[in-house]
Amino acid sequence: MKIGVRRSRYFLPTLREEPAEASVVSHRLMLRAGMIRQASAGLYNWLPLGFRVMKKIEVIVRAEQDRIGAHECLMPTIQSAELWKKSGRYDDYGKEMLRITDRHDAPLLYGPTNEEAITQLFAETTKSYKDLPCRLYHIQWKFRDEIRPRFGVMRAREFYMKDAYSFDADEEQGMASYRAMAVSYLRTFERMGMTAVPMRAETGPIGGNNSHEFVVLADTGESAVYCDSTLLEQKWQDDKGNDAKGNDDKGNDAKAHADAFARATSCYAATDEEHDAERFAAEVPAARRVSTRGIEVGHVFFFADKYSRPLEASVATRQGGSVPVAMGSYGVGISRLVAAAIESSHDANGIVWHDSIAPFSVGLVSLALDEKGRQEAEALYEGLCREGIETLYDDRLDVRAGVKFAEMDLVGVPWQIVVGDKNPKDSVELKRRDGNKKQTLPLENALAKVRESLKLTRAHDPVFD
Amino acid sequence: MKIGVRRSRYFLPTLREEPAEASVVSHRLMLRAGMIRQASAGLYNWLPLGFRVMKKIEVIVRAEQDRIGAHECLMPTIQSAELWKKSGRYDDYGKEMLRITDRHDAPLLYGPTNEEAITQLFAETTKSYKDLPCRLYHIQWKFRDEIRPRFGVMRAREFYMKDAYSFDADEEQGMASYRAMAVSYLRTFERMGMTAVPMRAETGPIGGNNSHEFVVLADTGESAVYCDSTLLEQKWQDDKGNDAKGNDDKGNDAKAHADAFARATSCYAATDEEHDAERFAAEVPAARRVSTRGIEVGHVFFFADKYSRPLEASVATRQGGSVPVAMGSYGVGISRLVAAAIESSHDANGIVWHDSIAPFSVGLVSLALDEKGRQEAEALYEGLCREGIETLYDDRLDVRAGVKFAEMDLVGVPWQIVVGDKNPKDSVELKRRDGNKKQTLPLENALAKVRESLKLTRAHDPVFD
Repeated sequence: MKIGVRRSRYFLPTLREEPAEASVVSHRLMLRAGMIRQASAGLYNWLPLGFRVMKKIEVIVRAEQDRIGAHECLMPTIQSAELWKKSGRYDDYGKEMLRITDRHDAPLLYGPTNEEAITQLFAETTKSYKDLPCRLYHIQWKFRDEIRPRFGVMRAREFYMKDAYSFDADEEQGMASYRAMAVSYLRTFERMGMTAVPMRAETGPIGGNNSHEFVVLADTGESAVYCDSTLLEQKWQDDKGNDAKGNDDKGNDAKAHADAFARATSCYAATDEEHDAERFAAEVPAARRVSTRGIEVGHVFFFADKYSRPLEASVATRQGGSVPVAMGSYGVGISRLVAAAIESSHDANGIVWHDSIAPFSVGLVSLALDEKGRQEAEALYEGLCREGIETLYDDRLDVRAGVKFAEMDLVGVPWQIVVGDKNPKDSVELKRRDGNKKQTLPLENALAKVRESLKLTRAHDPVFD
Repeated sequence: MKIGVRRSRYFLPTLREEPAEASVVSHRLMLRAGMIRQASAGLYNWLPLGFRVMKKIEVIVRAEQDRIGAHECLMPTIQSAELWKKSGRYDDYGKEMLRITDRHDAPLLYGPTNEEAITQLFAETTKSYKDLPCRLYHIQWKFRDEIRPRFGVMRAREFYMKDAYSFDADEEQGMASYRAMAVSYLRTFERMGMTAVPMRAETGPIGGNNSHEFVVLADTGESAVYCDSTLLEQKWQDDKGNDAKGNDDKGNDAKAHADAFARATSCYAATDEEHDAERFAAEVPAARRVSTRGIEVGHVFFFADKYSRPLEASVATRQGGSVPVAMGSYGVGISRLVAAAIESSHDANGIVWHDSIAPFSVGLVSLALDEKGRQEAEALYEGLCREGIETLYDDRLDVRAGVKFAEMDLVGVPWQIVVGDKNPKDSVELKRRDGNKKQTLPLENALAKVRESLKLTRAHDPVFD
């Protein structure tokens, strides 16, 4: 991905007017900030700015999956209907499943999820308990033919999702995988600057009897949620990725996962469907009762042998027999998270990105009127890029200062550096988008502040098994 | 992506036997090396090892697109049929186009290419010559319902492709974009260690009258090709990404592109369809006549206003009028390139990856039998990973040395380091897969060689406009 772009050459079709079709703030801001455009009903083009944010989110999701020993693969979007008939789910999705017939009249479908596909792959390749636990994930487009797609990418028909699958020798080990994934999710959302609360949930067409939804709290969320406020204050890792005890957990510490999972699920937290007002009042002191709205951004399921039995995914056991593997599945909505991040962090002027998922770290606004000022701005831009600092450089000559400032606020880049204005020599104006505080200071001091904030988001070590 | 993996925990289902369904070497080796598995006819699961290679290729394609000032976006896989009716192409693709009907009976299709979609997006967002040239690309799954899918991912139904589109004010500027893209392709393939020769080609259903195919020479290629051998000796950039004149071309040097394009297209080169034996004999001295087979890995088209006119993508001109933009489109088959790379670089023992696209840089084989040897191997593995060197670590205790060596050769990792054998103290065996030369040398010297080769593939600067 490009380290820097010049606004004059960038493809950033921002909108000045409020788009009439958007009813929620993330949809409105994504359209206004030139992040997306509708292609047709429930189908979106991701423009360069939106694409960058989605990729940032993908990178974090990937790193936290890798860290718990999951391996990335990629299954096709189109699946054979045969498999879904074997599992008995072909009819469960009803009209939300996009059914297709190919030129040979073979029934296909656009995958809404991949339990069948991965179980078949596992069954064909893995035969022994020695190869367990096995955790696989992929990040792929999915399709659900929503009857009324809405809220932009939040409820689009084609959406980008990370789905992971775990295979274990028995239910106990399967639940260890479940907890590892849940902890991975807590860290994933935390790294993006979002608080996502795990809530016991219904399992729906995925099946099984153990399931948690991860819900980002946002006033504009789609459903009502209730929880104990202590859940909102928990930390899952420090800036270096270490857990609460300072351990650089590599994913194999089942005890650490069990502790964190217990901490995450021991307090009251429920979505509307599962809410019990009486229990809420009894278990949670009034001062800690949070009643707000939320957006589902992740979901974990444990369903034991629901798929491994019909699809014959068994392994040889240590004792010489053969058992169907115990499975779980785990989803994170990546395209949806872009919208969820905006729902949970914006103000009247636009988006306020967390450093970790911002499309650029610095918005460099040049107000230079003379050639010397322009050259200084150019040199600063090149310097930032060569240092590896992602920069959106507003180099336009024919655009007023007020328009440039408004656009930088709208697209929500964490740091704004304004050069070529009436600042004292060698000084710049530095603005932090989160809080909107401005100060004039020597260029070197401004850069030091930017570097310091980048150090924090980049501190995670390379991941290996 | 993980920096390192332990073989004992990796999902790498290699095959010892030759798979019966594979008729070409890349398909056979991809199955044997645990890179892919068929999901259903013409649809492939990418297993972790194959996925890594595809991602490496994607990263290089992206960097070279970014460098010529193209911006990355992402369009959905599913498109509305309406658009294709407007352009008049709805029937052109025949049964190769996967046609779909949604729950509201709206006609959709799985995009085989995106000229219509991007033209609509451009038309909605861009109105002035001032915003030109505009170059956009995306990397997305495509579908062509091949009547007889074969050769593994080489001719799969669902395939991963980078497609770019250029928008210019007139044909002259449009051809400058065409040349920039062609040069970008020459560099892209060169960075991957492949020689791809541009050959004049038919335009087929894309249309227009200017088109070149990029063909990788391989004995096992699908079609016969003929060219002047001087084309095979050309260099398009040095290890730092500078062009023949030492310029770090940032994509806006139309003159440099024109020079390189002329150099690439001035000698005889033709696919079977366009071959003229008489001209070949007349223009190319006998000693330079290359007659072999090739695999198409890229294709560039210039078609002026074929889509911009029916889809009303016009810009205001400097003179005050309005003209349909001049367009081109440019494709690189990313999933296909994985197979093409294997077709052009393998031996009797397996794949021989070029450093730039290898799934790992180092295959670390531990033959240690005692605890001390094992600890040394572990420490070396961790050290390689912390240094950022991608390592496949064969840590298995219950597998014979011969099996480990054969597998490392099969998967084709560029460097193999063998530890814990009968080497002198502090020495290791280092093998280069390309050439299969082995030597025993002090560990530090072995690491120095590995680092040196990595420096070359990593030398490219960050890209910015």
